[in-house]
Amino acid sequence: MARAAIVGAAGYTGAELIRLALGHPHMHLVAVTSAADAGRPVADLYPGLAGCGLVFEEPSPDRIAAVADVVFLAVPHTAAMPLVPALLDAGLLVVDLSADFRLQDPAVFERWYDAQHSAPGLLPQAVYGLPELWRDGLPGARLIACPGCYPTATLLAAAPAVRAGLVADPHVVVDAKSGVSGAGRTPSAGTHFVAVNESIAAYKAAAHRHTPEMEQGLARCGLEEPVVTFVPHLTPMTRGLLATVYLRCEDGVALADAHAAYVDAYAGEPFVTVHPPGRMPSTREVAGSNRAHLGLAFDERASTLIVTCAIDNLGKGASGQAVQCANVALGYEETAGLDSPAPVV
Amino acid sequence: MARAAIVGAAGYTGAELIRLALGHPHMHLVAVTSAADAGRPVADLYPGLAGCGLVFEEPSPDRIAAVADVVFLAVPHTAAMPLVPALLDAGLLVVDLSADFRLQDPAVFERWYDAQHSAPGLLPQAVYGLPELWRDGLPGARLIACPGCYPTATLLAAAPAVRAGLVADPHVVVDAKSGVSGAGRTPSAGTHFVAVNESIAAYKAAAHRHTPEMEQGLARCGLEEPVVTFVPHLTPMTRGLLATVYLRCEDGVALADAHAAYVDAYAGEPFVTVHPPGRMPSTREVAGSNRAHLGLAFDERASTLIVTCAIDNLGKGASGQAVQCANVALGYEETAGLDSPAPVV
Amino acid sequence: MARAAIVGAAGYTGAELIRLALGHPHMHLVAVTSAADAGRPVADLYPGLAGCGLVFEEPSPDRIAAVADVVFLAVPHTAAMPLVPALLDAGLLVVDLSADFRLQDPAVFERWYDAQHSAPGLLPQAVYGLPELWRDGLPGARLIACPGCYPTATLLAAAPAVRAGLVADPHVVVDAKSGVSGAGRTPSAGTHFVAVNESIAAYKAAAHRHTPEMEQGLARCGLEEPVVTFVPHLTPMTRGLLATVYLRCEDGVALADAHAAYVDAYAGEPFVTVHPPGRMPSTREVAGSNRAHLGLAFDERASTLIVTCAIDNLGKGASGQAVQCANVALGYEETAGLDSPAPVV
Amino acid sequence: MARAAIVGAAGYTGAELIRLALGHPHMHLVAVTSAADAGRPVADLYPGLAGCGLVFEEPSPDRIAAVADVVFLAVPHTAAMPLVPALLDAGLLVVDLSADFRLQDPAVFERWYDAQHSAPGLLPQAVYGLPELWRDGLPGARLIACPGCYPTATLLAAAPAVRAGLVADPHVVVDAKSGVSGAGRTPSAGTHFVAVNESIAAYKAAAHRHTPEMEQGLARCGLEEPVVTFVPHLTPMTRGLLATVYLRCEDGVALADAHAAYVDAYAGEPFVTVHPPGRMPSTREVAGSNRAHLGLAFDERASTLIVTCAIDNLGKGASGQAVQCANVALGYEETAGLDSPAPVV
Repeated sequence: MARAAIVGAAGYTGAELIRLALGHPHMHLVAVTSAADAGRPVADLYPGLAGCGLVFEEPSPDRIAAVADVVFLAVPHTAAMPLVPALLDAGLLVVDLSADFRLQDPAVFERWYDAQHSAPGLLPQAVYGLPELWRDGLPGARLIACPGCYPTATLLAAAPAVRAGLVADPHVVVDAKSGVSGAGRTPSAGTHFVAVNESIAAYKAAAHRHTPEMEQGLARCGLEEPVVTFVPHLTPMTRGLLATVYLRCEDGVALADAHAAYVDAYAGEPFVTVHPPGRMPSTREVAGSNRAHLGLAFDERASTLIVTCAIDNLGKGASGQAVQCANVALGYEETAGLDSPAPVV
Repeated sequence: MARAAIVGAAGYTGAELIRLALGHPHMHLVAVTSAADAGRPVADLYPGLAGCGLVFEEPSPDRIAAVADVVFLAVPHTAAMPLVPALLDAGLLVVDLSADFRLQDPAVFERWYDAQHSAPGLLPQAVYGLPELWRDGLPGARLIACPGCYPTATLLAAAPAVRAGLVADPHVVVDAKSGVSGAGRTPSAGTHFVAVNESIAAYKAAAHRHTPEMEQGLARCGLEEPVVTFVPHLTPMTRGLLATVYLRCEDGVALADAHAAYVDAYAGEPFVTVHPPGRMPSTREVAGSNRAHLGLAFDERASTLIVTCAIDNLGKGASGQAVQCANVALGYEETAGLDSPAPVV
Repeated sequence: MARAAIVGAAGYTGAELIRLALGHPHMHLVAVTSAADAGRPVADLYPGLAGCGLVFEEPSPDRIAAVADVVFLAVPHTAAMPLVPALLDAGLLVVDLSADFRLQDPAVFERWYDAQHSAPGLLPQAVYGLPELWRDGLPGARLIACPGCYPTATLLAAAPAVRAGLVADPHVVVDAKSGVSGAGRTPSAGTHFVAVNESIAAYKAAAHRHTPEMEQGLARCGLEEPVVTFVPHLTPMTRGLLATVYLRCEDGVALADAHAAYVDAYAGEPFVTVHPPGRMPSTREVAGSNRAHLGLAFDERASTLIVTCAIDNLGKGASGQAVQCANVALGYEETAGLDSPAPVV
Repeated sequence: MARAAIVGAAGYTGAELIRLALGHPHMHLVAVTSAADAGRPVADLYPGLAGCGLVFEEPSPDRIAAVADVVFLAVPHTAAMPLVPALLDAGLLVVDLSADFRLQDPAVFERWYDAQHSAPGLLPQAVYGLPELWRDGLPGARLIACPGCYPTATLLAAAPAVRAGLVADPHVVVDAKSGVSGAGRTPSAGTHFVAVNESIAAYKAAAHRHTPEMEQGLARCGLEEPVVTFVPHLTPMTRGLLATVYLRCEDGVALADAHAAYVDAYAGEPFVTVHPPGRMPSTREVAGSNRAHLGLAFDERASTLIVTCAIDNLGKGASGQAVQCANVALGYEETAGLDSPAPVV
């Protein structure tokens, strides 16, 4: 039984972590922190968690280090890096959902995030937590950098084709669509119901911070000097993320080959489903779960493979994957706490 | 371990029953039937259940009687009654989600449902399955009539006040709002996205078949000759049901008294939360769960108590409650398979 | 041609007034003000108004008095009353969309709005602007108090029955459902997409400030000492308001009688449609328009008439009705600028 | 004053045509036909059109030829071609919203639509109705082929860059998102509220029939042998269409150059707005209108121009554009009947 703490627990990913930890057979939640909501019962903010009895407390690394074995950091970028060294020193497994330890090259971090990295010395030991692609580094890891929601879907969509050597062009187009919960809980003009309901729009086109993380992952899969043109879109739904990935392929590649590569790559993966050729996943079918569903089509006239990957941005795109990584790191069965099917509609 | 079968498993309530049974520690799913979809994998219709390996089969009472201990009937009204006698004879626990055994008086059934009852002799042994109000009859029951979604929310909202003797007027107004999943999976002009999105409307005002079931329940709570004016509204959301109940009270009743009666009535109930006075529940907070959340307000100028009850129409309003009832009937802990919190947003 | 100004033009009702004034054959927009957004082009906030060339300016009663013939005040309660005296003195027609001049009795205003009235001397000349019920006072009026959105729908729903003497009980239940635009443009936890999407909840039950306005209107229709139990609900849609009104009737009243009274009351009204008995309106059918659609049902067992009235909260519930009132006051055809049908879906 | 008829008037595009014709200063609606709904008042299906007094009639080319000057064909592909010859012979202006006369090469039509063309001899005189790009052919035209919704947005997004010689690669990626009204009024599993609400998914990836129409248009703009990889997505909203177009550009192109080309191309266009660089349009801002809003971004690392174009699929994507084309063909001002701003939210 691992004693778990969640820092930044009042946000959507934090609250989803609470939910998952409460239902986890090998985790016991010992602390949930929120600077803004310290002292308030969790059920006040999330009435669906009525009965859990938890109260948000002030974030205190010392206290967390004293009571927990594993800590989830559900905080914005630059807020995790000052906390991590002490937590690691105290012997905790640190599962960081922020962007702080995702990029191996601190210069790339500094360029895209416009901030200095305060703990670059820890980057080499940070394990990028996308088990289906890089499971090997996770058992026994002490610092896990959970991928961003968009890179998760994109890399799951692109990796098998790249690894199978099907991709001919280092320029990859990623057109992604996210539900509004991805924008966080803080009210703003951009998350007002009236502003986003019944409307779709691109944002941060070719300027989103998840871009270098996608490129780092593609390079690691073997694509040379990848360049990702990434355009996210805010979509009128609460949860869900769909990445539509366009991969220009070598001549002679056919849909059947590509499909076989994906089926093969994800054989035995408990959270990944590859649909039959031509059938595309919806975000609905993965909402509330840690699943990733993939669909493939092929434009023969342009030798372009189209892969869509549907995940729940708060599930496989954040909190679910964080728990999955912690499971692997701690030696639990990988699906522990994550295997209840989500509501069917 | 109970072997469970679901008849009518391809509809929304049926599929939600599949999901709940898959996660139930004491149930093993042995058969899921659908006349229309026999032969198709469940995951074809509900990709979120990918990996369950189940295939819809033709409904066959004989086969079900041979392999199952408990059967859930998720079928339309009049479709359950011909199946029940043989299933009972075979010794199964029958949990009926249709309307067929909810009304104790077959004449009332025939008037409201415009159909003859084929098994009126079984009505006396049918136990109305609303555990928070009438738990006593459930242990050892053989035929459970699960309440309709609207009566569930309405009776949970009204019963404590009636039982406490606060209600002065047998005329009760129930204004309810339901998500579109309550209309079932069959496509129609009325469930087309464009027809119901961004719109709310009343339907079957003062003519909905759940009316006599509400009146039967109120009478059982002690309200003499109750008359319910019931107006349901189709609301632009997938899940969720809110009943707003207006109860004219005896002079001198105050909000604090009423609130105390509710807190008392539901003390210890694992699935019911009574909010502090004046705080009203949203359907979001119970979506995906078997919970019922209640809020109270009081109009002193009209001596009228207002109670709103939020449930998930597919959860506490149907499949969740059916599992809860089966748990009590079979002697399992009442929350078995129902205690994972639902997604937080 | 009337020169029109809009104060508070950056809010939703203000912007809708801009749109209506731009399309109005007899109005010319000379000033749109917003303290918060002064200096910004209107099209920045409302890109659908691209091409209008308008820029928000600082609110200045002097300037407005100098350039306009009619002024629309789309401001919160208590913000209109200090502006009105000078604007009236300058000879303008003042169309006030705030609550400040709706209640004839300043004591009632002060009780419900928890604020002192600074211009009670003007209340007697304020004309309550609901033309279908009280058109007579409008021609030549100088100060028009536009009804609240909820009272508009409620009074249109209840007035014909009250006036026809059908209603037996002064206690009227009003259960209303509003889209989120009714909550205004300021971002808050309560208007965050994730908070209100896929969810319905009551708010301010039996405590909403529109209650006394409903009672004042019912009394004016002839109901003695009316008491309204009013419960509004926030509904997951951008626009639209549905009032479901429950009227206990005299013995012997039948649906056909009631329906005839409504058809008669609204004969010739250009913006009101009374549906055939039993057919209930949806908010979709009036979205984007100045229309009010009514449906009737009758619960014979409780002698209760149920009337639902669907309006667009920003149309007939606010800006549309304000323009309609101005048309009557100024002697234009009542439908001027309001007669384009709204988008069909 | 032109006498107008609408064939297929009960569908969404047909009904939107009714609405636009009713508000048109130079059109008088003489016939609206629907084989399925003949005899029913229009207001029965579209209560927002209450008061128009129109009744659907059986489609009869003879009668239409006798009473109308212009006819809009809002019918599925292959349903227009048998009607057109007689209507042209009778001297009517035929505005065809189906796909039948969009593709100049009947072999391409037959390959993509899997149907024989019955009137290939009329193709040379069919004028492709996208005024902003090809206005010249419209005055005096007798047969107008209105573009599909996706090609409208795509071509408006791509044409200025192509015409300015900025585009280096004939392979264009078009990732588009459409509201559910684009799927038509017929209920199906795929348009059930529960199926599409809170979910986004690709469909007909690289297989949608609008693909060759995009390629034909790009070629006409000067792109040699264009190949479009087109992936549409069904988006949980009623109206709206967003095309995100990826154009690989010549070396040395910069965002400022591209933006200038767009501003120049659409200078003076009443229905097109080009946002400042980096600002992307939402579908909300054009909902209910005939407008197209464009936004540009540039990925310098991949020399890729990203253009998003937001339209209303029923407005500029169908009925609005049809009226715009008819205006030009008939010599009316181009904005007649189309210039009221749409509801602001």
